[in-house]
Amino acid sequence: MNGEMKVAVMEGIGKIGYTKRPIPTPKSNEVLVKLEYVGICGSDMHYYETGAIGDYVVKPPFVLGHEPGGVVVEVGADVTHLKVGDRVALEPGKTCGHCEFCKTGRYNLCPDVVFFATPPVDGVFQEYVAHEAALCFKLPEHVSTLEGALIEPLAVGFHAANQGGAHAGQTAVVMGAGCIGLVTMMALKAEGVSKVYVVDIMQKRLDKALELGADGVINGKEQDAVQALLELTDGRGCDLAIETAGTEFTTRQCIQMTKKGATIVLVGYSKTGEITLPMSLALDKELTFKTVFRYRHIYPMAIDAVAAGKVNLKGIVTNIFDFDDIQNAMDQSVADKANIVKAVVRIGKEC
Amino acid sequence: MNGEMKVAVMEGIGKIGYTKRPIPTPKSNEVLVKLEYVGICGSDMHYYETGAIGDYVVKPPFVLGHEPGGVVVEVGADVTHLKVGDRVALEPGKTCGHCEFCKTGRYNLCPDVVFFATPPVDGVFQEYVAHEAALCFKLPEHVSTLEGALIEPLAVGFHAANQGGAHAGQTAVVMGAGCIGLVTMMALKAEGVSKVYVVDIMQKRLDKALELGADGVINGKEQDAVQALLELTDGRGCDLAIETAGTEFTTRQCIQMTKKGATIVLVGYSKTGEITLPMSLALDKELTFKTVFRYRHIYPMAIDAVAAGKVNLKGIVTNIFDFDDIQNAMDQSVADKANIVKAVVRIGKEC
Amino acid sequence: MNGEMKVAVMEGIGKIGYTKRPIPTPKSNEVLVKLEYVGICGSDMHYYETGAIGDYVVKPPFVLGHEPGGVVVEVGADVTHLKVGDRVALEPGKTCGHCEFCKTGRYNLCPDVVFFATPPVDGVFQEYVAHEAALCFKLPEHVSTLEGALIEPLAVGFHAANQGGAHAGQTAVVMGAGCIGLVTMMALKAEGVSKVYVVDIMQKRLDKALELGADGVINGKEQDAVQALLELTDGRGCDLAIETAGTEFTTRQCIQMTKKGATIVLVGYSKTGEITLPMSLALDKELTFKTVFRYRHIYPMAIDAVAAGKVNLKGIVTNIFDFDDIQNAMDQSVADKANIVKAVVRIGKEC
Amino acid sequence: MNGEMKVAVMEGIGKIGYTKRPIPTPKSNEVLVKLEYVGICGSDMHYYETGAIGDYVVKPPFVLGHEPGGVVVEVGADVTHLKVGDRVALEPGKTCGHCEFCKTGRYNLCPDVVFFATPPVDGVFQEYVAHEAALCFKLPEHVSTLEGALIEPLAVGFHAANQGGAHAGQTAVVMGAGCIGLVTMMALKAEGVSKVYVVDIMQKRLDKALELGADGVINGKEQDAVQALLELTDGRGCDLAIETAGTEFTTRQCIQMTKKGATIVLVGYSKTGEITLPMSLALDKELTFKTVFRYRHIYPMAIDAVAAGKVNLKGIVTNIFDFDDIQNAMDQSVADKANIVKAVVRIGKEC
Repeated sequence: MNGEMKVAVMEGIGKIGYTKRPIPTPKSNEVLVKLEYVGICGSDMHYYETGAIGDYVVKPPFVLGHEPGGVVVEVGADVTHLKVGDRVALEPGKTCGHCEFCKTGRYNLCPDVVFFATPPVDGVFQEYVAHEAALCFKLPEHVSTLEGALIEPLAVGFHAANQGGAHAGQTAVVMGAGCIGLVTMMALKAEGVSKVYVVDIMQKRLDKALELGADGVINGKEQDAVQALLELTDGRGCDLAIETAGTEFTTRQCIQMTKKGATIVLVGYSKTGEITLPMSLALDKELTFKTVFRYRHIYPMAIDAVAAGKVNLKGIVTNIFDFDDIQNAMDQSVADKANIVKAVVRIGKEC
Repeated sequence: MNGEMKVAVMEGIGKIGYTKRPIPTPKSNEVLVKLEYVGICGSDMHYYETGAIGDYVVKPPFVLGHEPGGVVVEVGADVTHLKVGDRVALEPGKTCGHCEFCKTGRYNLCPDVVFFATPPVDGVFQEYVAHEAALCFKLPEHVSTLEGALIEPLAVGFHAANQGGAHAGQTAVVMGAGCIGLVTMMALKAEGVSKVYVVDIMQKRLDKALELGADGVINGKEQDAVQALLELTDGRGCDLAIETAGTEFTTRQCIQMTKKGATIVLVGYSKTGEITLPMSLALDKELTFKTVFRYRHIYPMAIDAVAAGKVNLKGIVTNIFDFDDIQNAMDQSVADKANIVKAVVRIGKEC
Repeated sequence: MNGEMKVAVMEGIGKIGYTKRPIPTPKSNEVLVKLEYVGICGSDMHYYETGAIGDYVVKPPFVLGHEPGGVVVEVGADVTHLKVGDRVALEPGKTCGHCEFCKTGRYNLCPDVVFFATPPVDGVFQEYVAHEAALCFKLPEHVSTLEGALIEPLAVGFHAANQGGAHAGQTAVVMGAGCIGLVTMMALKAEGVSKVYVVDIMQKRLDKALELGADGVINGKEQDAVQALLELTDGRGCDLAIETAGTEFTTRQCIQMTKKGATIVLVGYSKTGEITLPMSLALDKELTFKTVFRYRHIYPMAIDAVAAGKVNLKGIVTNIFDFDDIQNAMDQSVADKANIVKAVVRIGKEC
Repeated sequence: MNGEMKVAVMEGIGKIGYTKRPIPTPKSNEVLVKLEYVGICGSDMHYYETGAIGDYVVKPPFVLGHEPGGVVVEVGADVTHLKVGDRVALEPGKTCGHCEFCKTGRYNLCPDVVFFATPPVDGVFQEYVAHEAALCFKLPEHVSTLEGALIEPLAVGFHAANQGGAHAGQTAVVMGAGCIGLVTMMALKAEGVSKVYVVDIMQKRLDKALELGADGVINGKEQDAVQALLELTDGRGCDLAIETAGTEFTTRQCIQMTKKGATIVLVGYSKTGEITLPMSLALDKELTFKTVFRYRHIYPMAIDAVAAGKVNLKGIVTNIFDFDDIQNAMDQSVADKANIVKAVVRIGKEC
């Protein structure tokens, strides 16, 4: 496909503009995807606000966005499992396939990964992208490209659940009811966890958690969350806690809320990068702490769960912005975290 | 509680009679349970028909029945988690707690287990039983003692699913749609398995499987089940196969139906005890075979799954017989396997 | 066996005296053991110095000591695997066998455990003890009761290695070369770990580590241990780090020394019970943190390893004190941690 | 490197000849290796004798040999971890890196694998080979290229041990003391397994097993191996059995020799591809059967084990043939299985 496409670029901190670039040509193992929806992630907002995350520093012009859903419009010569017209979710990280981590199935730790919207690699707030076909997952008939875009955050939730060894019969708690907290709660339910409780300090988010299937919620502003959780579990505590809020306070609560032998999964990053924990208590309880870096082996499972109605992905979306309105989308998302749980950019019309 | 109770005893092959025995007195760590429902298991039928299973030989008078649900009517001095009036499901095997197997959490392999209706230990086709309180699991309000009785076969299904490492995203097949096949299918769904297909040769059972939640069924009499399964999975085969039919034919099909690296769980016993398998094919695919002996750590999880509506246990019951009608119940169950998927004996009135 | 035995009792902080008590009579499932050696553990020293560990407060008179080796002198009626004259190592914790943790094989987390020298349960600085026979493990001919006493700390090392998933091909680091650090290093080697490096700040201990089989040592006082470890591993870092020093500094170093996807096992308790960690770095590397509370399923394995010459247990003993000299033993152990790696009390003569 | 090299080709069943081919040019991610030793594997012998293994049919001229060790003589532009003069062991299978199996770390199941000496892919009975550098593992100073060649069969042994979950404290039995049986026994010892017993019917092989470190051997011709094994284990049986003999008889014995809950690993292929097993007994014991197809993630671990002196690889070699003598090497290997445990072809002089 020849011609130009419109690309939204971050021109500096807090500043989005638009430019034209050539529509890319897919290689033999790639497909060209016309994007329909791209979600706005917390990391996009962080780059937009501050220009960097840790050692990753934005050099403008830079393209944000790594949660894409779209339609295949061109297919590379060697691609057999996709055809023009297929709607797809795009896993954003290309990995080498040959390092120690790739070889052992932990490709999310590949040191040579090329990941959308992680400087210096551009993201996908643009009309088209050419992407490795093996990373483009066909959506079943009744799964939309809006949901396709949201498979990416859902993948984080499923990976957190997997890291925690989530399974039927367990009682779990999720700290934080933002986008990642909500998808984690739904992933836990989809994996058969018996009871999933959610803790947050914004009632609006907790209402959303209940609406999407949480077995109970605790407002940490109004109640001692540890006490409340212990009461909900007849004093026994949880088998599994997943921390998505990224605060020391909630991480410490995880240690207090869990049973002996339990697992705590850390997903949220704290502001300073440091957390002080009561580790002697953790040793007395022989707790395990797992951490989460992106995800692996999740897309097909996550798409299945959405298709089967086990995960209500559309339910987390509170705001949809037009492609021409990204500056506003970013500004509002940054400013109004209490009300905007999840914003998505509509790049093109849904087919 | 003083007095006598009515007990149904196997007086010989194919012969049930009734006798009176003293109501047992619970020890300090036991409860006395008034039984309401006891399921009829394939092993009960086998003892009834033939007088033995392997080295376990019935010496009449012998009491059959090991799938009990009832109501607590007396509580031992040291019991704290149960009270009179609690409805309970009874896990039928008492284990030593101190052998290598108990210590490592595999108590189902305890060589000193005392298990209802396994000669010479009597079962529970009787009005009352005193049982270790730690093996009596309280049923939530909306779970009936009929369902309580059926937690036992469901436990086999969940253990089979656990042995197979069942998890979200997988495609599984269950060979056989008898009682154990059906509960296994429901256990797999409750553990989040994406697609569960069921194979049998009796259409009635397959209809039941669909009614209870199977994603698809294959009638092995009318179709080549291997071919049909491969078509359902776009040629890829299953991640997990659970064999409950106990035939060489279906076990061989499992090896052909599964993906490389897959797991096959063997639950059904074959008639001769021997099975001939294409092991070179299994090696080429690097398959794993797990087997199942009873279950462990399942009752609370299974009760939760029923309470949450994830497993429709009542749905497997095709016949309920009165306590006075056990001879007939056994005779019919043996004679009409095509129509009687699961029979249950109503011992007393439900409270 | 009738008569009295001599018992060393802690009469107050820093004060040991002696008393006479009746020799206990073993129950039907117990054996009576004449003790020959009892090791002095860090926890004994802590109780002796301060009178408490966390919520466990010594009420004098209290008997310290929980690392016993001895000879069976009387056998309960139901005991079949031991006879008079057998030399044994005693696992110090009796567990209930029926709680959630016991049932699932994690008996070290049993809330009703009765553990030697953990207030209010007396320890074994005394001539005889009656103990559950299932917790008394027969020593092979060429394993001494001195080594039998040291199976207890070795069990901590093996459990740490197991919690870390230690296996052939890995590179591991052990922080701290005290008694627990040394036995952990030897446990790792016995489990086939390819390279085990040890970090400490006392050269004497590091020399001991080398003597006992460490593949390399790092003096953290003289070198940047992180840098040194990275050099030893061609910049790749370790697969596994086991922290036994109990300091924030060394725990932080574990996070820096390990590869992506690695496991860190926390064994040492910090003084304040709190540790501040760079958790964002841990998330970026997707590290796992396991903790250790005592041990489970280790005694037979540990005795085997000693018998096979894989672990040189005698090699960690720097000081042997007489039973009459316990006050001095405790005082020296507390005062001279640099030179006393491991002290043992000789209770009676070795047979 | 320009010029021609000598290649041994199978010209038909039982017929080896020699030809000249151009020395290959390594691609940017490859190295050119001058081969020094190539082992003769059972599969080479099978192709030589019969022309096929299952669906893999030799079309002459075909090059056998897939156990190579040699010296790097040329390095592709992108290769950084190897240089000219490095001695290397070559892992013989190139995999795609992007299929479901590769992505999940089970690359040995990659359907697109290109594996030396598996028709139609030529092997390495030749003077040079260009191979993916990531599959060429540098040998430490004191590991020879003869040992490098034998890393391949050792990898099968380690993978079998890994599949069986081998670990310290276990008792294991290996059925068969051929090359694979012997390396499996050594792999089990290197992974810390406490006791490894070996069963065969040729005393010469059993003597070799003892010489290489087996804890005991059983001559199945002279003794009832099941009975003998039970006596060696005080009636308890093994935790782990690894079957390398490929007979129904020995596979059945594995089921009888193992403890409840044990794992049996099937490595050997039976002649007919079919095996009849007492599966009801396996269910009663809740046994697990794992199978082995080649190996994954083993080369670095195996090289480490050889370098550390844990595995005596040279010890399995009974015969070394010259490159010009391959016809004879193959003929003798086929004819005299009792005496030739492992034959190796010396391609060039060792540097």
